[in-house]
Amino acid sequence: MQLLVLHGPNLNLLGSREPEVYGRFTLTDINNKLTEQAAAAEAAVRFLQSNHEGELIDAVHEARSWADGILINPGAFTHYSYALRDAIAAVALPTVEVHLSNIHARETFRQKSVLAAVCVGQISGFGWRSYSLGLQALLAEIKEKRA
Amino acid sequence: MQLLVLHGPNLNLLGSREPEVYGRFTLTDINNKLTEQAAAAEAAVRFLQSNHEGELIDAVHEARSWADGILINPGAFTHYSYALRDAIAAVALPTVEVHLSNIHARETFRQKSVLAAVCVGQISGFGWRSYSLGLQALLAEIKEKRA
Amino acid sequence: MQLLVLHGPNLNLLGSREPEVYGRFTLTDINNKLTEQAAAAEAAVRFLQSNHEGELIDAVHEARSWADGILINPGAFTHYSYALRDAIAAVALPTVEVHLSNIHARETFRQKSVLAAVCVGQISGFGWRSYSLGLQALLAEIKEKRA
Amino acid sequence: MQLLVLHGPNLNLLGSREPEVYGRFTLTDINNKLTEQAAAAEAAVRFLQSNHEGELIDAVHEARSWADGILINPGAFTHYSYALRDAIAAVALPTVEVHLSNIHARETFRQKSVLAAVCVGQISGFGWRSYSLGLQALLAEIKEKRA
Amino acid sequence: MQLLVLHGPNLNLLGSREPEVYGRFTLTDINNKLTEQAAAAEAAVRFLQSNHEGELIDAVHEARSWADGILINPGAFTHYSYALRDAIAAVALPTVEVHLSNIHARETFRQKSVLAAVCVGQISGFGWRSYSLGLQALLAEIKEKRA
Amino acid sequence: MQLLVLHGPNLNLLGSREPEVYGRFTLTDINNKLTEQAAAAEAAVRFLQSNHEGELIDAVHEARSWADGILINPGAFTHYSYALRDAIAAVALPTVEVHLSNIHARETFRQKSVLAAVCVGQISGFGWRSYSLGLQALLAEIKEKRA
Amino acid sequence: MQLLVLHGPNLNLLGSREPEVYGRFTLTDINNKLTEQAAAAEAAVRFLQSNHEGELIDAVHEARSWADGILINPGAFTHYSYALRDAIAAVALPTVEVHLSNIHARETFRQKSVLAAVCVGQISGFGWRSYSLGLQALLAEIKEKRA
Amino acid sequence: MQLLVLHGPNLNLLGSREPEVYGRFTLTDINNKLTEQAAAAEAAVRFLQSNHEGELIDAVHEARSWADGILINPGAFTHYSYALRDAIAAVALPTVEVHLSNIHARETFRQKSVLAAVCVGQISGFGWRSYSLGLQALLAEIKEKRA
Amino acid sequence: MQLLVLHGPNLNLLGSREPEVYGRFTLTDINNKLTEQAAAAEAAVRFLQSNHEGELIDAVHEARSWADGILINPGAFTHYSYALRDAIAAVALPTVEVHLSNIHARETFRQKSVLAAVCVGQISGFGWRSYSLGLQALLAEIKEKRA
Amino acid sequence: MQLLVLHGPNLNLLGSREPEVYGRFTLTDINNKLTEQAAAAEAAVRFLQSNHEGELIDAVHEARSWADGILINPGAFTHYSYALRDAIAAVALPTVEVHLSNIHARETFRQKSVLAAVCVGQISGFGWRSYSLGLQALLAEIKEKRA
Amino acid sequence: MQLLVLHGPNLNLLGSREPEVYGRFTLTDINNKLTEQAAAAEAAVRFLQSNHEGELIDAVHEARSWADGILINPGAFTHYSYALRDAIAAVALPTVEVHLSNIHARETFRQKSVLAAVCVGQISGFGWRSYSLGLQALLAEIKEKRA
Amino acid sequence: MQLLVLHGPNLNLLGSREPEVYGRFTLTDINNKLTEQAAAAEAAVRFLQSNHEGELIDAVHEARSWADGILINPGAFTHYSYALRDAIAAVALPTVEVHLSNIHARETFRQKSVLAAVCVGQISGFGWRSYSLGLQALLAEIKEKRA
Repeated sequence: MQLLVLHGPNLNLLGSREPEVYGRFTLTDINNKLTEQAAAAEAAVRFLQSNHEGELIDAVHEARSWADGILINPGAFTHYSYALRDAIAAVALPTVEVHLSNIHARETFRQKSVLAAVCVGQISGFGWRSYSLGLQALLAEIKEKRA
Repeated sequence: MQLLVLHGPNLNLLGSREPEVYGRFTLTDINNKLTEQAAAAEAAVRFLQSNHEGELIDAVHEARSWADGILINPGAFTHYSYALRDAIAAVALPTVEVHLSNIHARETFRQKSVLAAVCVGQISGFGWRSYSLGLQALLAEIKEKRA
Repeated sequence: MQLLVLHGPNLNLLGSREPEVYGRFTLTDINNKLTEQAAAAEAAVRFLQSNHEGELIDAVHEARSWADGILINPGAFTHYSYALRDAIAAVALPTVEVHLSNIHARETFRQKSVLAAVCVGQISGFGWRSYSLGLQALLAEIKEKRA
Repeated sequence: MQLLVLHGPNLNLLGSREPEVYGRFTLTDINNKLTEQAAAAEAAVRFLQSNHEGELIDAVHEARSWADGILINPGAFTHYSYALRDAIAAVALPTVEVHLSNIHARETFRQKSVLAAVCVGQISGFGWRSYSLGLQALLAEIKEKRA
Repeated sequence: MQLLVLHGPNLNLLGSREPEVYGRFTLTDINNKLTEQAAAAEAAVRFLQSNHEGELIDAVHEARSWADGILINPGAFTHYSYALRDAIAAVALPTVEVHLSNIHARETFRQKSVLAAVCVGQISGFGWRSYSLGLQALLAEIKEKRA
Repeated sequence: MQLLVLHGPNLNLLGSREPEVYGRFTLTDINNKLTEQAAAAEAAVRFLQSNHEGELIDAVHEARSWADGILINPGAFTHYSYALRDAIAAVALPTVEVHLSNIHARETFRQKSVLAAVCVGQISGFGWRSYSLGLQALLAEIKEKRA
Repeated sequence: MQLLVLHGPNLNLLGSREPEVYGRFTLTDINNKLTEQAAAAEAAVRFLQSNHEGELIDAVHEARSWADGILINPGAFTHYSYALRDAIAAVALPTVEVHLSNIHARETFRQKSVLAAVCVGQISGFGWRSYSLGLQALLAEIKEKRA
Repeated sequence: MQLLVLHGPNLNLLGSREPEVYGRFTLTDINNKLTEQAAAAEAAVRFLQSNHEGELIDAVHEARSWADGILINPGAFTHYSYALRDAIAAVALPTVEVHLSNIHARETFRQKSVLAAVCVGQISGFGWRSYSLGLQALLAEIKEKRA
Repeated sequence: MQLLVLHGPNLNLLGSREPEVYGRFTLTDINNKLTEQAAAAEAAVRFLQSNHEGELIDAVHEARSWADGILINPGAFTHYSYALRDAIAAVALPTVEVHLSNIHARETFRQKSVLAAVCVGQISGFGWRSYSLGLQALLAEIKEKRA
Repeated sequence: MQLLVLHGPNLNLLGSREPEVYGRFTLTDINNKLTEQAAAAEAAVRFLQSNHEGELIDAVHEARSWADGILINPGAFTHYSYALRDAIAAVALPTVEVHLSNIHARETFRQKSVLAAVCVGQISGFGWRSYSLGLQALLAEIKEKRA
Repeated sequence: MQLLVLHGPNLNLLGSREPEVYGRFTLTDINNKLTEQAAAAEAAVRFLQSNHEGELIDAVHEARSWADGILINPGAFTHYSYALRDAIAAVALPTVEVHLSNIHARETFRQKSVLAAVCVGQISGFGWRSYSLGLQALLAEIKEKRA
Repeated sequence: MQLLVLHGPNLNLLGSREPEVYGRFTLTDINNKLTEQAAAAEAAVRFLQSNHEGELIDAVHEARSWADGILINPGAFTHYSYALRDAIAAVALPTVEVHLSNIHARETFRQKSVLAAVCVGQISGFGWRSYSLGLQALLAEIKEKRA
């Protein structure tokens, strides 16, 4: 099983950026954890972090040819990138949306995800564990569809 | 570790109610899975399902005296029970909110959780697995706070 | 044919409560009329009035095992009880919604029924006759579905 | 007793227009049923269908000189014809509003009736039976006022 | 000087319709007063009352060939007839809008005039005198433009 | 008959302020016209212009002891001075609201008058003639109430 | 004089729940104070706290047979319980609404009371003293109506 | 192939009405162009312009018996005629909506088409060419459906 | 203890202004009652009524040098005077807001207080007693802060 | 004549992406058709598809130096890219906006084009033919401006 | 060059009022700095602080006869004083709006300036330096217009 | 002292793009002025203009390692780039937001800055001088923080 993990804008700063909101792990820490977790489930993971909406869209498109599913933390694109939403809808791969902080407990603009409508589900508020839980959920979803 | 799992209105019908939306597992199936999962983490779980807002609030209150955290699927109370929200805020136990369906991909009124502001995080859209992921998240949250 | 008639909050006061808005018949008067009307159509009716949202939901659930349809005056729950709505959707019995006063001619908050989307139809504004018309409509609906 | 039955725009197509929404009876079928029903109550009914807002208003005005009440399915005028509303208010005849489909379970724009505020009540969602129930309600209303 | 006076829907009922809101003068009374008032200013007036939006629009169009200005009480069309608005804008004759009742002191929907943006001004709340004042204003406006 | 004419903020600049919007007459010109017009009707007029909301309110209060009615151009206070509205409601003198420009054809914020609900009527869009028409309307209103 | 004091959801936790918002007195403390205060005014008070909307409604209904007025802190029901509102309107006893915290200085959703329209008045923001002031106000209201 | 071309209110004034917005061609010019264009595609076109909503609806209804598609410029009815919308939905003929000016670049109220939901597509902003492009689109649509 | 009592616009008319809404006591009556009540608590009170927003602000500023708290009935300024709000916030004296009528049971615009966010609490709906209750609340608040 | 054709995000997937919404032609198919169509009109076309907002903006800027007009399907950028809008406004080349699906018949967020205000016109709902019609419209627009 | 500097309500308290929001300089400090800064540019400055909207308007009016431009910190009047806005529009002097705190980073109501539409520009968030920067901007604006 | 100056989308066109709105200076002109101004204050400035949101975000991130502050004209990204906002919040460098035109005096969508909440202040409406004033403000801010 092959999975794409996408990190949206500003997530490269993880660990240093507002740690009281986003936690103290770096993106590399998280990627390492996910690689291990995936390996344990006999799955492989590729990572992309980008601050460029277009690169994330390109990666979603390319995933059609190699991936079985997508795990995405869209960062601030969550709230306005209808282009990213259309990309996910277009490739029709199972996609799980995760957020480090509980976006539903923050500013009003952060409570709306324009991507949610094309994702399997959403996990929000558990720091780096949101990714780990999301990976589990994605693996289960893919296995179930295959069964 | 002691945990309270709360199931809100109509969840007693699980398995028979609109299975294309909510899945085919019954509430007993889910409770059994959670008991096993908790046991593996050396935790104990108690369950309550109620269609009565007041009973859920009472249970939240009582949890102050015995529980370390709450896992809740508030059902439709998600969208208007400010009383349940105040109960969770009042007892100040770590609380994780879960939903079987992806509420952010459904009718507008289902996309707003009045409880989110007082919960650690939210997991939405993975059927019975939302509970299982939520339990994991809750256990980790409690352990972390203790550490 | 077996029917459940549900009366929501404050309808126990009927006859004494704001008679210029809700009319002068008591709930017993209305129930008696409905029993007669049902009998004439070879149908039986059971009644429940409750000021407790949870009891109404429980009754809707139980109706799955014995009733062919539901006639409901949800009272003020009309405007916010998404839990009651989900209950009606879950049991999938034909349900007719009635109101004594014309809710569409009153305060703005009364003009919205959160239950309407899961009911066959709505009758509003004819005092106790709203129930009688609703019973007719429900009986016809059930017969038609059987035919 | 003399009654006017008004059918708003597009109702002439009844039976052929979107039968899954509006049912399979034609307007003539409905008019015949209402004539019979009225005759049984010793009442006479006159009919007008028009796609012209002005003709409906003219008919409401003329009804002042001969009718005891109005049964109206305003079709799409329900949602914007303040002129028709003013006509009904002006003649001060008891008026009952009916709809074939359950307008409160459809698009948002269909859930608002600008006429409701000047009508006795509203019946919505029972196909041709909405008319029949409405006629009953109107006859009862008129008799009660006379008594 | 030639003027067109347009009366919108339901104004034919004037004098009998809700006299506590609209006053006790009939439309003929008002037309007679306006004819006299115009004659005193060496102007001629033609009248049209219609409950048909299309007839009012047709009359506005025809006025291009003979009239110097329009006095209009659009009745309920005030609030939604963008077609009438476009007609007035198209003929580019000075137009004064009048209302018997003070529309800005009534229901919210009556406080918005979709025609105002293409009229010289608006007079509202003085019963039949609104017409008389409007005629004065229109005559002055035309004279001033000629000067 | 004694009348108070109130001019709200910035109207002292009349004649020089944005003449393409408000016309070329000065306030003195208008006051002179109104004095003449009143005299012809055997009425006397007193004037106050103020840029101070409080002074206008004080003047409204004092008018209780000597005036039979009020003619007011509230200027920008039209849109937010609930205090001025309450003053007019409190003294219960017939009050006519006038505007030089057609406020209903301008910016959205200018289309709402918070005073309208407590005035007899509103005249808007005829330059200085709005005052003159308003005075006529006020005199007629007072005479009619006396009769 | 007989009075009913109702405490809505979560008020049983008073003293321990978010004391920086709601103060340090327990509900028993408050009830004792009110009993004394009432006794000094030769009035008797009965208390009910409930987290169940239906129980509060039932208590309001029963108060018709024995009480002269109601003092209510509706807790979070303030913001959505139209059923409780209808109960108060139905029994037509003078009712005073109190809140420990100043609800108008908190989250937007807390600033709206759906009960206010059927209460004599509202006291908000003075901790346990809100109750004491509310009791005074209620006693005065009842005495005045009797006089 | 038989096509109905409908022109809504005020389009009879084309060529003289606000030419800077709507262009200098008359309706006859446009009809002639369309006739030629249709003939070249071996199609026939019939035209109706009306300022009466009802006449347009009647024409849509009649088209069921003879036409293969409808080309409509609904004029101002675009923004509020739900009756016309229902007519188009009812006859289920492929319908193309055209506008002379770019309605999406004008006043807010012009940017909403209540008809769009029942039309194949919309062409807006190209003056008389909007019709010509719309005719092409309609012909292609019909041919494709036949194929 | 020294207190400032501020009465906003139109309160000078108390006793004569709409007595069915605001009661029959004059402002002098109320001031006398408050003076007595304060004296009994060994406090002194100074009064200011003004229809001028600026004077009320000046008085709030001056209170910094002599007063221990402010009791204010802001009248209509309640709904829009952000300047008065900033004044109260700036001087940081405990301030209690009172209203004669129950503003939460009146027009929508009256239900919003822009001052509430900077006041200790709000008392609304008890006529002159609102002041008396407010004075009590203010005295207790000041004493508690001193303790 | 030189034209730039811009395809926004996700249009590279055309033919495979949700064909029931967007049709079965690939972007290459469409480009080929447009090249031919342009050639027939003695015009040349250059193409750019990008998922990167910035690349589209850059291309619009460069077009200033070589192109006579722009044909753009902005994809999801239609709904939020004010930057793209400003680019089109800045270069002041005639621009035509096209959409494959009828955006006015889809989700609410798709019905708003933030680019429309700076484009000549909009064509929506005709699949690949929207481009072809748009090219025609653009060529005509440019020719007319030259004439 | 002659300039008017206006300080709106509560700015007299500067230095003592909420220094964490508004800084520690007094108004005299700021005025002194501005006088020096102006002198260096061979300009003279006059100052007015008022808590009275009317006095600020009067000062704006008088500035027509002597000043070349206005620097204004409207305080809370920023958000509702349409009268002040009209005054600035009326005198047509170049006006620069300044704010000590960054109003766009504060409560929603503070983010809207009703004056902005009639000012050259706005400077917000730099404490007393907002004035200094504003003065520079105003001087440059006036010089440029003269050139 | 080291500063980053960021120019958002379309600002590369400065001088040629809509000069009546944005002025006649080119970006190079502005950069030269800023370099000089910075040098005079013993500061160095680096510039980046980009039409790519991602490049601006990358530059903000990199600034953490070398810059003391950021001066940004976000162009149209002002209104929707929550990603850019998060970048500025993440690096926690003092940031000043500037706009050439007065965005608060333009279209509604331009009046909202989603970046304002994370910037020191905002300067809007002074053409190229907005940059110059912003640089001053930024330098002062940094110096003050160091002091």
